[in-house]
Amino acid sequence: MADPRFFAAAGPFALSRLCEIARAELGGGVDPEAHFFDVAPLDRAGSREVSFLDNRRYLESFVRSEAGACVVHRDLAVRAPDGMALLLSTEPYRAYARIAQAFYPDVVPESGIADGAFVHATARLGDDCSVEPGAVIGPGAELGRRCRVGSNAVIGPGVVLGDDCRIGPCASLLFCLLGNRVVIHAGVRIGQDGFGFAPGPEAHEKVPQLGRVLIEDDVEIGANTTIDRGSGPDTVIGSGTKIDNLVQIAHNVQLGSGCIIVSQVGISGSTKVGQLVMMGGQAGLTGHLKIGSGARIGAQAGVMRDVDPGATVMGSPAQPVKEYWRQVAMVSGLAKKRKGS
Amino acid sequence: MADPRFFAAAGPFALSRLCEIARAELGGGVDPEAHFFDVAPLDRAGSREVSFLDNRRYLESFVRSEAGACVVHRDLAVRAPDGMALLLSTEPYRAYARIAQAFYPDVVPESGIADGAFVHATARLGDDCSVEPGAVIGPGAELGRRCRVGSNAVIGPGVVLGDDCRIGPCASLLFCLLGNRVVIHAGVRIGQDGFGFAPGPEAHEKVPQLGRVLIEDDVEIGANTTIDRGSGPDTVIGSGTKIDNLVQIAHNVQLGSGCIIVSQVGISGSTKVGQLVMMGGQAGLTGHLKIGSGARIGAQAGVMRDVDPGATVMGSPAQPVKEYWRQVAMVSGLAKKRKGS
Amino acid sequence: MADPRFFAAAGPFALSRLCEIARAELGGGVDPEAHFFDVAPLDRAGSREVSFLDNRRYLESFVRSEAGACVVHRDLAVRAPDGMALLLSTEPYRAYARIAQAFYPDVVPESGIADGAFVHATARLGDDCSVEPGAVIGPGAELGRRCRVGSNAVIGPGVVLGDDCRIGPCASLLFCLLGNRVVIHAGVRIGQDGFGFAPGPEAHEKVPQLGRVLIEDDVEIGANTTIDRGSGPDTVIGSGTKIDNLVQIAHNVQLGSGCIIVSQVGISGSTKVGQLVMMGGQAGLTGHLKIGSGARIGAQAGVMRDVDPGATVMGSPAQPVKEYWRQVAMVSGLAKKRKGS
Repeated sequence: MADPRFFAAAGPFALSRLCEIARAELGGGVDPEAHFFDVAPLDRAGSREVSFLDNRRYLESFVRSEAGACVVHRDLAVRAPDGMALLLSTEPYRAYARIAQAFYPDVVPESGIADGAFVHATARLGDDCSVEPGAVIGPGAELGRRCRVGSNAVIGPGVVLGDDCRIGPCASLLFCLLGNRVVIHAGVRIGQDGFGFAPGPEAHEKVPQLGRVLIEDDVEIGANTTIDRGSGPDTVIGSGTKIDNLVQIAHNVQLGSGCIIVSQVGISGSTKVGQLVMMGGQAGLTGHLKIGSGARIGAQAGVMRDVDPGATVMGSPAQPVKEYWRQVAMVSGLAKKRKGS
Repeated sequence: MADPRFFAAAGPFALSRLCEIARAELGGGVDPEAHFFDVAPLDRAGSREVSFLDNRRYLESFVRSEAGACVVHRDLAVRAPDGMALLLSTEPYRAYARIAQAFYPDVVPESGIADGAFVHATARLGDDCSVEPGAVIGPGAELGRRCRVGSNAVIGPGVVLGDDCRIGPCASLLFCLLGNRVVIHAGVRIGQDGFGFAPGPEAHEKVPQLGRVLIEDDVEIGANTTIDRGSGPDTVIGSGTKIDNLVQIAHNVQLGSGCIIVSQVGISGSTKVGQLVMMGGQAGLTGHLKIGSGARIGAQAGVMRDVDPGATVMGSPAQPVKEYWRQVAMVSGLAKKRKGS
Repeated sequence: MADPRFFAAAGPFALSRLCEIARAELGGGVDPEAHFFDVAPLDRAGSREVSFLDNRRYLESFVRSEAGACVVHRDLAVRAPDGMALLLSTEPYRAYARIAQAFYPDVVPESGIADGAFVHATARLGDDCSVEPGAVIGPGAELGRRCRVGSNAVIGPGVVLGDDCRIGPCASLLFCLLGNRVVIHAGVRIGQDGFGFAPGPEAHEKVPQLGRVLIEDDVEIGANTTIDRGSGPDTVIGSGTKIDNLVQIAHNVQLGSGCIIVSQVGISGSTKVGQLVMMGGQAGLTGHLKIGSGARIGAQAGVMRDVDPGATVMGSPAQPVKEYWRQVAMVSGLAKKRKGS
């Protein structure tokens, strides 16, 4: 059970309701009105809890589990222990995610502006927003309905948020427009000047950065990540894209929808990324590249050239994945041979 | 045109005035008193806007541009479309930067200490400073004239700022002395304890960090960058140096003047860097190195040895640039040969 | 002498007292009641100051030093200049660290809750805590004795701190339990949602993150570092572990006690790290690994496999250290041969 200091479980839910939530089918021989009270891992779940099996590596735990109910792929249902209620799904992890969301919905704070928050007289807040102590909302800012602004967060002048946005503590948003259901974690920096200088031996001349950051619906941005505003064009984060902690996104970068960008990635200025691109941790991309939709970029890769749609690259400088592993094997093999000789 | 929610264009300016600003020469056959209202890219500029051509890659856009005026190198002036006023410069990008600065000067907020800012009674502020809501200025801090402190920023006890400094929202400055015109972006951390421990199997003994961070004139520091204070000597950032987002600068590092440090670089303790050094994104330097003036360090390089003045290094471990590319080509070639055999 | 704007030296201390503090033995021929007033490096110390020699590289400075007293290994005592009082230790750097701590103890602010701090009515603070302006302490939070919460820091609902914890300015702590003497630097982000999504082509389904972050005694965490809470299990940082700036620690990671994690390291989800492990700057570890106690991971290493206890690995992909250097030498040698041919 999750620590009650921090989490409060909703429920209980009937199996029939859980199947609706999970978009799963109820296995035979069980009472659809039986109620369940929580989620738990296979090895810790009891008779009143729901678990899941997604990875065959945990099949043994499934076989021995005392979970009262379990989300599982139809193919593995025959391995279930006696008496376990089964919620059959072709996507058990996604189905479990929905059930866990139902048991642990976002805690909605009381709406209102806390004492010690600073909301400028010309800012406009939609219904049912909550603004925590120390948050600052600047002149002309506009928040949609049910937005939540964490303690000591800063919403700059003119910034626009859609409905149901969540801004973590100590984040700062400047020169940006957010869609709906955007989640910004603690310490995120959005919209500051990009790194734009016309370099010279006597002084690097600052180039005014006149664009914005556009963040589409359902984007989530991890803690202490930085996204600079455009220099003239905008910096754009496509809908549903998920960005991890400590990522750097430079001015004029465009990320398509549904991308997954793992922690500490750096994307240089004006690079354009398609849809559903995945980037592993600490990968770096130089500027002005085109990364095709569905491409996969390995952790720590150093990408200096365009990447084709659907391609996978690894290494620094980045290579097609097969080429990369062939090089790694060749270098390792030659070095061992040398040692032997 | 830049989004008027965030930007207000100054101007209009006469061509003659723009030439002064840009340090450019006005091409023939145009009225020096014709007025212009904004800047814009070549492909979007209209008859009352100023654009620029810096990179021959965009020559085609220049030839077709409808911009009323354009900053361009003399050598390319003959390619200009009819009727375009030309501002001739040997450094078109720098010239354009100055014009863009004139159209979009820093917005100077009303001076004064906002409600909800906390300025200690013993802090001293020069004339015309502005302190936004939630900012905290500690005991004994001294700010020069026209400094601006963003919302929820923290200026620690005894910290000194010169004139015209800008501190972004949520930044924190401790144990540091800043020159004039220093720009600190959101979430920057300056002056915390360096990572100084005398390691041991039972406990790592903390070594008190008794130095400061000295930041000279015209330095700019990107969002969420961290600069630790010295352990006894000071950490020093030389004048005019520009540091991007999420950079780590450890205790006792000395950066010379005019350096450009791209995002996510890490510089370990006591490394000394000359003037006008450039470091690409995600490069890492070990401690106690000497990096000569004018050196260039490639993105993702791993520098473990001193670098000579003017040298260019790449790779991890870092190599002279020619050596690096020779190695990359050799590994790639051998791996392909193996595949073929 | 340290800048008196920022530091106030305690003392003076008698040599006999300094020996107790340092756990050192006083060399012969000196007055144990002679008093000393400060610490300083060998080349700057005067007759009333204490210095140290730890690294033979500085032997020449030792021989010429005018320091009145010096911490040194017994083996080097014979090289001391005439009249220098010696504090003999087998661990001179650790001994010096203790002396420097005595001269420069943590400055304890006046206890109390500053004007402009926001402490929820249901939060409980132990005796002698200090809370600076703009800090926010949420409902149900519990702080031990003598905790210090910096300006604009945020302690979330239900968070628990032991005794003598120090929270830097602008840090945020959510969903976490801290032991005693934990030091959190400025801008640290603890306890936000981990990067947990069940990916899919239409939408990445968020997986509720139901664990916490447990931080044991004597941990120190550097500026702008991010530590996500567990997804169900907890994220754990073992006692005495020291983490540098801008490090990323993902959900469910477990770090053993006494680890040293240098700046910009990234550790992916569910990786388990033993005791006394050292990781160099910018190293990256993929998820679900086991890193044995005493292992050493080189700077910029890319670790994709388990690492044995006591092993040293370098490179990306990470190799045993000998193998790594053999490969580097082989590649360099072959490339040079090609050039020659």
